[in-house]
Amino acid sequence: MCRIPACVFRGKDYTGSMPAIRLFGLPTDVNSSFERGAAGGPAAIRAALRSDRGNMASELGPEIGTDIAFTDDGDLPLTEHVAHDDAAIRRHVAMLHEDGEIPIALGGDHAVTFPLVEAAAACFGPLNILHIDAHPDLYDDFGGNPRSHASPFARICEAGHAARLVQVGIRTLNRHCATQADRFGVEIVPMAGFVPEAVPVLSGPLYISIDLDGLDPSAAPGVAHPEPGGLTVRELLAVLHRQCAPIVGADIVEHHPGRDIGGVTAIVGAKLVRELAALIDRNGYWRG
Amino acid sequence: MCRIPACVFRGKDYTGSMPAIRLFGLPTDVNSSFERGAAGGPAAIRAALRSDRGNMASELGPEIGTDIAFTDDGDLPLTEHVAHDDAAIRRHVAMLHEDGEIPIALGGDHAVTFPLVEAAAACFGPLNILHIDAHPDLYDDFGGNPRSHASPFARICEAGHAARLVQVGIRTLNRHCATQADRFGVEIVPMAGFVPEAVPVLSGPLYISIDLDGLDPSAAPGVAHPEPGGLTVRELLAVLHRQCAPIVGADIVEHHPGRDIGGVTAIVGAKLVRELAALIDRNGYWRG
Amino acid sequence: MCRIPACVFRGKDYTGSMPAIRLFGLPTDVNSSFERGAAGGPAAIRAALRSDRGNMASELGPEIGTDIAFTDDGDLPLTEHVAHDDAAIRRHVAMLHEDGEIPIALGGDHAVTFPLVEAAAACFGPLNILHIDAHPDLYDDFGGNPRSHASPFARICEAGHAARLVQVGIRTLNRHCATQADRFGVEIVPMAGFVPEAVPVLSGPLYISIDLDGLDPSAAPGVAHPEPGGLTVRELLAVLHRQCAPIVGADIVEHHPGRDIGGVTAIVGAKLVRELAALIDRNGYWRG
Amino acid sequence: MCRIPACVFRGKDYTGSMPAIRLFGLPTDVNSSFERGAAGGPAAIRAALRSDRGNMASELGPEIGTDIAFTDDGDLPLTEHVAHDDAAIRRHVAMLHEDGEIPIALGGDHAVTFPLVEAAAACFGPLNILHIDAHPDLYDDFGGNPRSHASPFARICEAGHAARLVQVGIRTLNRHCATQADRFGVEIVPMAGFVPEAVPVLSGPLYISIDLDGLDPSAAPGVAHPEPGGLTVRELLAVLHRQCAPIVGADIVEHHPGRDIGGVTAIVGAKLVRELAALIDRNGYWRG
Amino acid sequence: MCRIPACVFRGKDYTGSMPAIRLFGLPTDVNSSFERGAAGGPAAIRAALRSDRGNMASELGPEIGTDIAFTDDGDLPLTEHVAHDDAAIRRHVAMLHEDGEIPIALGGDHAVTFPLVEAAAACFGPLNILHIDAHPDLYDDFGGNPRSHASPFARICEAGHAARLVQVGIRTLNRHCATQADRFGVEIVPMAGFVPEAVPVLSGPLYISIDLDGLDPSAAPGVAHPEPGGLTVRELLAVLHRQCAPIVGADIVEHHPGRDIGGVTAIVGAKLVRELAALIDRNGYWRG
Amino acid sequence: MCRIPACVFRGKDYTGSMPAIRLFGLPTDVNSSFERGAAGGPAAIRAALRSDRGNMASELGPEIGTDIAFTDDGDLPLTEHVAHDDAAIRRHVAMLHEDGEIPIALGGDHAVTFPLVEAAAACFGPLNILHIDAHPDLYDDFGGNPRSHASPFARICEAGHAARLVQVGIRTLNRHCATQADRFGVEIVPMAGFVPEAVPVLSGPLYISIDLDGLDPSAAPGVAHPEPGGLTVRELLAVLHRQCAPIVGADIVEHHPGRDIGGVTAIVGAKLVRELAALIDRNGYWRG
Repeated sequence: MCRIPACVFRGKDYTGSMPAIRLFGLPTDVNSSFERGAAGGPAAIRAALRSDRGNMASELGPEIGTDIAFTDDGDLPLTEHVAHDDAAIRRHVAMLHEDGEIPIALGGDHAVTFPLVEAAAACFGPLNILHIDAHPDLYDDFGGNPRSHASPFARICEAGHAARLVQVGIRTLNRHCATQADRFGVEIVPMAGFVPEAVPVLSGPLYISIDLDGLDPSAAPGVAHPEPGGLTVRELLAVLHRQCAPIVGADIVEHHPGRDIGGVTAIVGAKLVRELAALIDRNGYWRG
Repeated sequence: MCRIPACVFRGKDYTGSMPAIRLFGLPTDVNSSFERGAAGGPAAIRAALRSDRGNMASELGPEIGTDIAFTDDGDLPLTEHVAHDDAAIRRHVAMLHEDGEIPIALGGDHAVTFPLVEAAAACFGPLNILHIDAHPDLYDDFGGNPRSHASPFARICEAGHAARLVQVGIRTLNRHCATQADRFGVEIVPMAGFVPEAVPVLSGPLYISIDLDGLDPSAAPGVAHPEPGGLTVRELLAVLHRQCAPIVGADIVEHHPGRDIGGVTAIVGAKLVRELAALIDRNGYWRG
Repeated sequence: MCRIPACVFRGKDYTGSMPAIRLFGLPTDVNSSFERGAAGGPAAIRAALRSDRGNMASELGPEIGTDIAFTDDGDLPLTEHVAHDDAAIRRHVAMLHEDGEIPIALGGDHAVTFPLVEAAAACFGPLNILHIDAHPDLYDDFGGNPRSHASPFARICEAGHAARLVQVGIRTLNRHCATQADRFGVEIVPMAGFVPEAVPVLSGPLYISIDLDGLDPSAAPGVAHPEPGGLTVRELLAVLHRQCAPIVGADIVEHHPGRDIGGVTAIVGAKLVRELAALIDRNGYWRG
Repeated sequence: MCRIPACVFRGKDYTGSMPAIRLFGLPTDVNSSFERGAAGGPAAIRAALRSDRGNMASELGPEIGTDIAFTDDGDLPLTEHVAHDDAAIRRHVAMLHEDGEIPIALGGDHAVTFPLVEAAAACFGPLNILHIDAHPDLYDDFGGNPRSHASPFARICEAGHAARLVQVGIRTLNRHCATQADRFGVEIVPMAGFVPEAVPVLSGPLYISIDLDGLDPSAAPGVAHPEPGGLTVRELLAVLHRQCAPIVGADIVEHHPGRDIGGVTAIVGAKLVRELAALIDRNGYWRG
Repeated sequence: MCRIPACVFRGKDYTGSMPAIRLFGLPTDVNSSFERGAAGGPAAIRAALRSDRGNMASELGPEIGTDIAFTDDGDLPLTEHVAHDDAAIRRHVAMLHEDGEIPIALGGDHAVTFPLVEAAAACFGPLNILHIDAHPDLYDDFGGNPRSHASPFARICEAGHAARLVQVGIRTLNRHCATQADRFGVEIVPMAGFVPEAVPVLSGPLYISIDLDGLDPSAAPGVAHPEPGGLTVRELLAVLHRQCAPIVGADIVEHHPGRDIGGVTAIVGAKLVRELAALIDRNGYWRG
Repeated sequence: MCRIPACVFRGKDYTGSMPAIRLFGLPTDVNSSFERGAAGGPAAIRAALRSDRGNMASELGPEIGTDIAFTDDGDLPLTEHVAHDDAAIRRHVAMLHEDGEIPIALGGDHAVTFPLVEAAAACFGPLNILHIDAHPDLYDDFGGNPRSHASPFARICEAGHAARLVQVGIRTLNRHCATQADRFGVEIVPMAGFVPEAVPVLSGPLYISIDLDGLDPSAAPGVAHPEPGGLTVRELLAVLHRQCAPIVGADIVEHHPGRDIGGVTAIVGAKLVRELAALIDRNGYWRG
């Protein structure tokens, strides 16, 4: 059950121990259906995060790296062999969870979310997932590939990893994906008349997956499948900041630097790293 | 899965057959915890519905009784023996469902919703329930009475009749009821920052239960437990009109004529009868 | 054509001469269809206007009677003979227009708006009319009476007195009146999703007719036909304050003191007198 | 008269016959006042429409080409001789109307709207026109050219083709065009405080003309005259989806690919083709 | 400087000691200008607070008296001798502050706010004051009485007790009070276009004074000077809940039971006691 | 004290004499901390202002240069010697104020605001400053430079030139600057839940400083420090148009043409020149 005011009095006082946050990149786009390029995402977002164009303040207050424990582990060594890469991702996430640390992964295409969620569900049980995207990514397969970046949430639902899957930003829902959404009980928040208050406040354990094409192309042009009519950055921040439950993992995927303009999508990605880190820190540990 | 635009193209053209709507009253307040009076609700709302102060137009367009088949069956003969009355209510609803007709019940106190929902679930399986109220009505018992008007949704959840229970208007959530809501997986839409878009669009089979104290006391003073800070009539209508799924039953409860002022709560009740009838008609039959 | 910013730079500096405003009452309810009582409206509103419960400040800034020339002429001597009374009303309004003064009339039932508009149109030609009401008042006749308070805007449209008729607050539109509205080209601003910005900013010459049942019954219970779901006072003020065109007449009708609660509807009526006076003053003279 | 709820119950059930939609391009910019380039618009938008970057789902639900009959006729063979080209456009549209088909034209500069509207008015009589633009396009002439892309709506109004002309997005209204707007009775929805609900819901026969510079330059940079402060894509979609009347024609004009960035304006154009097609289909045939 | 997100991470964990809250009544209306009656306010609000019509849950989460230390001290023994009563009020408040307790006072008319603020300022220095009211209460004197209930904030400003005075709900600002407001640097949040976000988030030490006529008469009819167009209860709660600074005192004044309807204003008063108590508790101690 | 309606009746009638507006450029970026480029701003904005892509209409109504006296003085001859340049700026502004003319300066980096404000404060005393920016620019020094473009408002506050400093758009507030803001009493309007109504309406003498990175990067990409989540152009215009007080100076700074895309940031800068000119004209002269 969600109660917004709870956010406030269940806050923390920064005197106790808090979750350490571990950032890592997944530079792969082997499962992209139309145009590769997302493998360059981690490097571009990391460069923006370190640049003096911005600073490390988050809009929630604390500074990343100063007030909040935050480490960048670099990129995992991926191979384009999907099974091998999936195993490497699961191992890395499992290791972090064992140490009580919370992962933020930088894609790569959206196919990486399947092993990321699988590892978190292995540790915490079925997750409540907040999924930001222009597309539902529910294809049974795409062009014959069941691990396509258009299919991860079909895999996640079939495997029973989602207690609740809430999708925000969807504006390309064709017949096949609508059927899949009905079948899996996916909750799609309509974009017609969208307000951040329309997104449910989920309970924990919470996983957040952000495909940058959920944002409007004016805010995030550097993606393979720009779809007009998306979220503004302020709307996305409002959706995130309303979430009060402990977060057990997050990813930011599908940045395609080859289509970016003036580096603005990478800058958005870096800002989302800061805001997710501050949110993970604020919401605290999940204790089932 | 909810898709608002679907409301529009899945409309009907009024040439085919549509559900007939059957109104009936349940003049009982034996399960009221603090002050009886809700037994007078059906008569007062019926009088307002028939008065020339208003007309039979609904805000969705059609006129009740002209464009929409609508019958008022009068009040059921209740006895203040709860088990007997529950059985009578269940029998009446079952009979209507057999004939393909949709019930709108006028309470009475909120305890009547338990047999109403039970009868609908017997016919359609677990329901998605939209519950408008100032109070969650989730007490395990109240003053020792497990059938108290403060308890119907505890009974409904325990019996497994609610696939999903969404509560709107809640602004008196104490510790005990918060625990019950967590236990039953109730979804409470917060009143802080409320907008109608924050209420999920539910799938069918849909049941709607309106406790008039969900409205602000300025709009509906004639209730036993007025609680400031409630919905406006326009907000309630917006919540209702957004719902696109076929409706299998509805109730309007807790009007206490002895506390009404200028008959305005009865007039609101009558308007809600018209709007629910038009909504049932628009959304069409449920075909599992 | 409407341009909001024009409100600002077409303002005035209070050094030149401005329209004098003349208030008068029309204590008649002979054309009420369901329940008489509106004849008591002028006395009740006048008492509230003079009471020390309030003061003479308007929300637009100036004080009525101090910064703005404002006279109360008392009530016209009406007779319940409709033709005689209509002529008396027309004569009084014509006399004011000859002197360059602007009338605000207090009904009485809504039937008085027909002679009021007729007199203004005789002086200024077809008017743009802003009509606030729960009901469209477009019946061809009501109970055989073509001068019923449910019919004035049918008469006004037939006579060609309305260049444009914009109705705000309508929430009882039955089949007959919908047909009449189509026939006369009436613009009805829908209450579903209502915001003040949805009301067009009209050009001059502008006439404003306010039936107090356009407001929600919580704000104005003292009317014969309360209909839930109406405008708040703030919404009505926002609708009025957006209007920039010179106003050639206004009325406030259908206050039924016998149904009022704590005098609040009379107080609303008195506030609307002040706000209309300040608006007439701000928007200045119409010079065709 | 506009009644939003009518959208719902006047929907269709997809069992009867629906209007077929015919897309065609008008690759001309001979009437552009400042910088040519819009002749490249049809090719760019068509390429985006066919690209696998997007899909054929519309936000109203149905898929274009699958659920909705939709044909792309390619470009008309234009010559830069205005009179010749106008005649060709009128002939093509007239032929479609004879077959009960609805045209969506891709400009080209805005001058093409004059023959498009002229042909529709020849078939249906004066139209209600919804015009999205940063500029009112009401110049009596521009640089001596009465057929300039800054003048089509002056020509349309003079010819009596507009029963009602509603302009949305205007934010460059100079003295001359304000005078023209007053003269022609154009209704301009102010951008100050804009909300989609402020746009009237028009009755049929409805014509929709979209100059892409009505959108904000962040959403549609590929235009000759970008003007900051325009509509977002979501606002434009909300304006369109509110319209319930049968549509007899539509155009999307002024895309200038030479100024586009990352192809995003062409993608917006393609999305608007899909949404207009779904809207035409939903609203059904006009039967005067 | 105000930073909303700070509310969240500067929250508390309910393991440490929190301010105890002390409620007391001030049954006096000797300084009322028009109609006495506010002396009955404390008894009426206290009765509503204790009634089983409601419960002790606050919308911020905790229950009053269970989760939060809360004592009702009854009414102070006042005498209608203003100087004597002022001294009694100051002594009582000073005593509470010495014990680290926070007072919530129930008026009585608004004149009591002067000694209440004076005592708080003696302890904490100049205060930031959030003042909810229909009237600015800034008269130099009213009818010759400088201690009139229309004058307390003139006295407070002259005495230098207000570091910042923010007024919300004002809709009766006449020339004299506008001049006073300019002179004292009062910040009046306009009611035209009011949204809760327009009210500044003040820093501590914060004092909150609520005249119930700041609310709309539909929500709080039981006041001597009802003025239409006021705040809704939800808007007032949103204004309060946004305030993050430690609170050193609060009052709720001007309830006139003789004008109440169905006891709803007393119920609103009781709800505000609960919400103020929860807010004082959440925001914690002021440590200069 | 702010009273919105005052905007309206304190307007002007364009028959008297109004302030002449003088535009000049300050092509300097010697105090930029990260990347120079802002020296090219004046030329780029001036080119957009003169281009036939746009026109000279303002959204407030009047045309610049036609209805409003407006002169472009070209660029001041700056030298990269800060003290020399500061003196040149102060002399130029002082000269304009002596002639009763109002300056609009085009930066240049934000360091130029210090001498601009200093000169205005020398003439008018402490100013109320509305500051639009992504960054608070309150660093005590940045990289050892106390005149850095990250420090002007620290210098302004220390010098006592700001009666009130209101910052809008801030979304990078780190620990150091939060401390500075507390120390100087800066009022920061939070971006979380931002609405234009949340910005106070300031009294005169008013100075407006617009750093273009206060806007969202989608609207103004041509800046050295783009920060996602900023104001839309419509939000900024709403903030400006709400201000009613006489303006004594304004600047538009930090346009970096080397990072612009399609010239859109220069076009925004030119639009803001027009809107500031119309606002200065509308609000009239400051007479202490």
